[in-house]
Amino acid sequence: MKVDFSKLDRAFNPQTVVVVGDSKATNFGWLRAQLKFKGKLYSVHVNRNTFEDIRALGVTNYTSLLDVPGPIDLVVVAVARKAAVSILDDCIRKDVAAAHFFSAGFSETHTQEGIELERQLIARAEKANFHLIGPNCMGLFNPKAGIRQNDDQYLDVSGSVGLISQSGSIAIAFGMDAYQQGLYINKSVSYGNGIVVDSPDFLEYFGNDPEIKIIGMYVEGVKNGRRFLDTLKEIASKKPVVIWKGGRTEEGGRAIASHTGALALSRNVWDAAIKQCGAIQVTSMDELVDTIKALLFLPPVRGKRVAIAGGPGGQSVIGTDIFAEAGLNVPQLTKESYAELETFFEVVGGSYRNPIDTAGPVRRDMKRIMGVVSRDANIDNIAYIVSTRPGRSISTEQFQNTLAVLEDIKNQSKPLIAMVFLHTPDASREVGVIIKKLQERSITAFPSIPRGARALKNAFDYYNHSHGYS
Amino acid sequence: MKVDFSKLDRAFNPQTVVVVGDSKATNFGWLRAQLKFKGKLYSVHVNRNTFEDIRALGVTNYTSLLDVPGPIDLVVVAVARKAAVSILDDCIRKDVAAAHFFSAGFSETHTQEGIELERQLIARAEKANFHLIGPNCMGLFNPKAGIRQNDDQYLDVSGSVGLISQSGSIAIAFGMDAYQQGLYINKSVSYGNGIVVDSPDFLEYFGNDPEIKIIGMYVEGVKNGRRFLDTLKEIASKKPVVIWKGGRTEEGGRAIASHTGALALSRNVWDAAIKQCGAIQVTSMDELVDTIKALLFLPPVRGKRVAIAGGPGGQSVIGTDIFAEAGLNVPQLTKESYAELETFFEVVGGSYRNPIDTAGPVRRDMKRIMGVVSRDANIDNIAYIVSTRPGRSISTEQFQNTLAVLEDIKNQSKPLIAMVFLHTPDASREVGVIIKKLQERSITAFPSIPRGARALKNAFDYYNHSHGYS
Repeated sequence: MKVDFSKLDRAFNPQTVVVVGDSKATNFGWLRAQLKFKGKLYSVHVNRNTFEDIRALGVTNYTSLLDVPGPIDLVVVAVARKAAVSILDDCIRKDVAAAHFFSAGFSETHTQEGIELERQLIARAEKANFHLIGPNCMGLFNPKAGIRQNDDQYLDVSGSVGLISQSGSIAIAFGMDAYQQGLYINKSVSYGNGIVVDSPDFLEYFGNDPEIKIIGMYVEGVKNGRRFLDTLKEIASKKPVVIWKGGRTEEGGRAIASHTGALALSRNVWDAAIKQCGAIQVTSMDELVDTIKALLFLPPVRGKRVAIAGGPGGQSVIGTDIFAEAGLNVPQLTKESYAELETFFEVVGGSYRNPIDTAGPVRRDMKRIMGVVSRDANIDNIAYIVSTRPGRSISTEQFQNTLAVLEDIKNQSKPLIAMVFLHTPDASREVGVIIKKLQERSITAFPSIPRGARALKNAFDYYNHSHGYS
Repeated sequence: MKVDFSKLDRAFNPQTVVVVGDSKATNFGWLRAQLKFKGKLYSVHVNRNTFEDIRALGVTNYTSLLDVPGPIDLVVVAVARKAAVSILDDCIRKDVAAAHFFSAGFSETHTQEGIELERQLIARAEKANFHLIGPNCMGLFNPKAGIRQNDDQYLDVSGSVGLISQSGSIAIAFGMDAYQQGLYINKSVSYGNGIVVDSPDFLEYFGNDPEIKIIGMYVEGVKNGRRFLDTLKEIASKKPVVIWKGGRTEEGGRAIASHTGALALSRNVWDAAIKQCGAIQVTSMDELVDTIKALLFLPPVRGKRVAIAGGPGGQSVIGTDIFAEAGLNVPQLTKESYAELETFFEVVGGSYRNPIDTAGPVRRDMKRIMGVVSRDANIDNIAYIVSTRPGRSISTEQFQNTLAVLEDIKNQSKPLIAMVFLHTPDASREVGVIIKKLQERSITAFPSIPRGARALKNAFDYYNHSHGYS
């Protein structure tokens, strides 16, 4: 089906949203998720037992979609699968811009009934050129427009990331994880079985959306390989596309068959194709978040050579191992730098080799040290360990000092990443707070040394596949 | 030097501790760390400016170690390096059981002065058969005895882990990280340059300590390779030893030279030697914590075949990939199990293949489903994803249900690991709380799917190198 972007525009930025058949058993989760939506929100439900509850939410209910007044931009269909076809008919009759079918139980069940019902959905939607999203999916999230996949999703900020995910739980989990690290969604879609509007359509749509600077994807399989790869190649030449493929292993391939009904692909073929398209492949949620972060926030990473600084001895050693094992280099500085450092760097138990081990996280002359490192001709990137003495929380003063050093380095043009190494009784929370504060100051920060190293390496690989446009 | 374990016993379980030359600049951190120690605590300081502060801490100060009344079990030496030799002389004269030298600036600086001072320490300690720990280290931590490396370390619980670390910051960080996951230290030592009492001595000592069930190590290098490996082999035949080597890479090898002065080793030689000794090698802090957890808490892991359950679709797919990529198998269940499951498992969008995708975290018949899986002849281990709908915190009721299922599986004899997959605005804190609650009920829990998979694989490798003793 030829997708009409103006219809997707209406669905992602709706004036009117209707939820059909929301479930009392799940406490009307779909309606609740849209309660902060600024446009018109209606419910369609035929069960009298739900009328009071829906009214209590402040939402007007109709017993038929055809009764809803005015044009409809987005319908969320949450009915049981047996009713899905008739709701689709109503959507078509009502000329709805697009409908997201949360309803599941179609081809992914491998049952005759499920397959037949899905066939009917496809036939009717294609005949009417109707923009059906799903089924078996969580649909759309646009914090700016106020439409959500559940009522825990944020509405307070809109970013530059477009996320396309076959799995609903991974779409939502990605948004949550990224948010905690200062990385924000612009638009996100969970498309499930993708029987009408499919991943290449969203890829093309997000690829042409000027608000979206980078695209993240979680896919389990693709239906039309040729079209998917052609679209990917086209879009990846305009903006970075980072892809995580579920079902990479033989066993995982079997698992996707019953999840979204996607066919397993040969891993080698997939890996080669993605690379050829100029997209970046990742293999975990953390890596997806971190790689997007590195590509979105860092200047182009052109070289492999990294200076590591900021941490005491142990962290410096393990940090060096981690960067080397990630495929980056931690070279010696130039003789000129060593000569300059020698004039003022004297710390018992420290070292101004690389890693720059200052025997502790804060030093008065850190700015000066890092100035020398920033100018060093042997160094392409700076990786800074934001740490405290283990067990200690970072003090406000310490953090201000570290921040001043980092802002100074950032202004000296080499790609800079900050990596938090904190081991306190409340580390998990504190690390999140620090990451957010760093990101607010445009310092690209990662919650651990391995995550920072991996992200920097992925960015290096990306820019060294001749992507010149960023 | 022949180490006398009765002296280490006194040092790790002291009646009297003396801190020499604690620093006002760091707010008397060493004294503060011992304030909850139940035995006698004294200070030795010659600087009049410190007397008032030390008195304010409630600690009696002497101007010479020789003036301290009664026998001394442990001295913490925090003086500048130039004074270290004379303090050592006092320790010897006073017949102190052992002294931990926090003082740094010796051979690790590669300066003539540092090397010469270290030589003097070695000569005097060896001549007197004196138990010198360090220098350039954080010394001892024994929560039961109330002696600590800093005042953030816990004293409320004592576990079964003995930790031997060349790096102080890694020793403390390990303890913090492990504590947050319900894994507790029995005794820990940071030994720094290890010039007199060295890693093989601590290995032997912890190996013979009945309170220590498993030993974790962070080493950067060893002085006497033969002795180290002979001791490791002997101890690893009695209890599991998990080793993390800092400076594994060429670049990391250069870094350790300036950290603890250790010599770099060929990585291949090291890897082969560790394996031959029957020890387990890990390469990160997370893996060190997780592997110790798996070996300490799980029954012997004899097979590679894993059933994955508990998560909805996306998590089940990625979980399957992760286990397969970690080198484990996620096989199909037996025909008998499928036939049995078929009689009652019907969930639209779910699947009772393996992974067992129940299309959501909680199901009424989960106990029954897991009963079938637990009896399945194709399955050796069960990996259970503790999850919620992304964005949702786990409810008390959900958690109680999950717990009941997990306790039921645990009683059915196959190794069981729980892995938390939680993506909420406050996930990092919540994951920690859940892990602790699971561990309290003897359910071995990990904070993510990859961490659980890696730990289970390491345990499998361990038990399949013919370790029959656990």
